[in-house]
Amino acid sequence: MNGEEYQKTRETLKNIVESADTAMLVTTTLDGHIVSRPMQLQKVEFNGDLWFLTLKDTEKYYEIKHNDVVNVVIAEKSYASITGHAEIVDDLELKKKFWNKAYEDMFNMDYTDPRVTLIKIHAESAEYWDTGSTVKSAFNFVRKVVGNEEPGKPSNSTNQTLEL
Amino acid sequence: MNGEEYQKTRETLKNIVESADTAMLVTTTLDGHIVSRPMQLQKVEFNGDLWFLTLKDTEKYYEIKHNDVVNVVIAEKSYASITGHAEIVDDLELKKKFWNKAYEDMFNMDYTDPRVTLIKIHAESAEYWDTGSTVKSAFNFVRKVVGNEEPGKPSNSTNQTLEL
Repeated sequence: MNGEEYQKTRETLKNIVESADTAMLVTTTLDGHIVSRPMQLQKVEFNGDLWFLTLKDTEKYYEIKHNDVVNVVIAEKSYASITGHAEIVDDLELKKKFWNKAYEDMFNMDYTDPRVTLIKIHAESAEYWDTGSTVKSAFNFVRKVVGNEEPGKPSNSTNQTLEL
Repeated sequence: MNGEEYQKTRETLKNIVESADTAMLVTTTLDGHIVSRPMQLQKVEFNGDLWFLTLKDTEKYYEIKHNDVVNVVIAEKSYASITGHAEIVDDLELKKKFWNKAYEDMFNMDYTDPRVTLIKIHAESAEYWDTGSTVKSAFNFVRKVVGNEEPGKPSNSTNQTLEL
C-alpha cells in the first residue's frame, strides 16, 4: 500500500466511525461466552479511541474489568470491525462532555453520579467494508500514526467476505 | 415471564433473525483478539441454528476450528446478540441448497468445489433490542423449546442499554 492508498484507507475508516451513531460493543462473559450490545457512540474525532458512556452496575462493566479484549462492530451504511482493548475511565470532565439531557431524564441522575463511568476502546486494528463494496480493507493502527505523527504499518487485503 | 410473554419474546427474536440479510460473525483470533465480519445470513426458518456459507481457506474458518465460541450480531432495524458455538458442516446437499448463482460468478466455482463449506451456529442464548425500543429482552435457549417441544427457561431483563 502506497502513501496515497494509506491515506485513503485511513480517511474512509475515520468517516465510517465518525458517521456511526450506534455500535455493538462485543465483550466476553465471565464464563467465556461472547456477547454484544448496541451502545451510543460518543461523537468525537476518531484518533484511534472510541468512547462509550455506561453505568458501573452493568454486565459489560464487570466483563471489561475481567477481560479487556473487545471488538466494536459498526453495521450501518458500511461495516467495520474494530479490535482493541477496553479501559474504564472515571474522568468527571469527560463525563460532563459526553453527558446529555436524555440520559438525565432516563436514568434520573446526572454525570456527577458515581454510578456513571466511561469506557474507552483503544483500537489496535480495524477492518472495514465500505458502502456497497464487498472488498475488505484492513488497517493496523500504530497509535501515533492515527494521531498523524509518523507513517504507519497499514495492511490491505481483499477478501470477498460479505457474500459467503 | 408467563407463557404469553415467552411466546412473544420467542416470536420477536425469530422475526428479527429471519428478516435480517446480513450479520456480523464474531470470532476469536488465534492470538486472542476478537474480530467480526459481515456475512450473508442464509434464509431458513430460525429454530436455534444460523447458517453461513464460506470458503475453507479463510481466517474465520481457522478461527472457528481453533475456538468455536462465537457471537452473531444483527444490527439492521432491530439489534440482536446471539451467543453460541460454531460448527463446520461439510454437507453437499445443504451446500447445494444454500448456493446461489452470484457466488458462482464471483468465485468461479460451484457448490461441489471442496473449498466451499458451511458454518452452523448453535444458538444458546440471545438478547435483542426491538425496533425503536431501548429495552433489552433476553432469551435463553433450550434447544427443544425452540423446536416447540417443551417449555423453556427464558429470562427477561430490562436494561436501558442502547443509550449508554
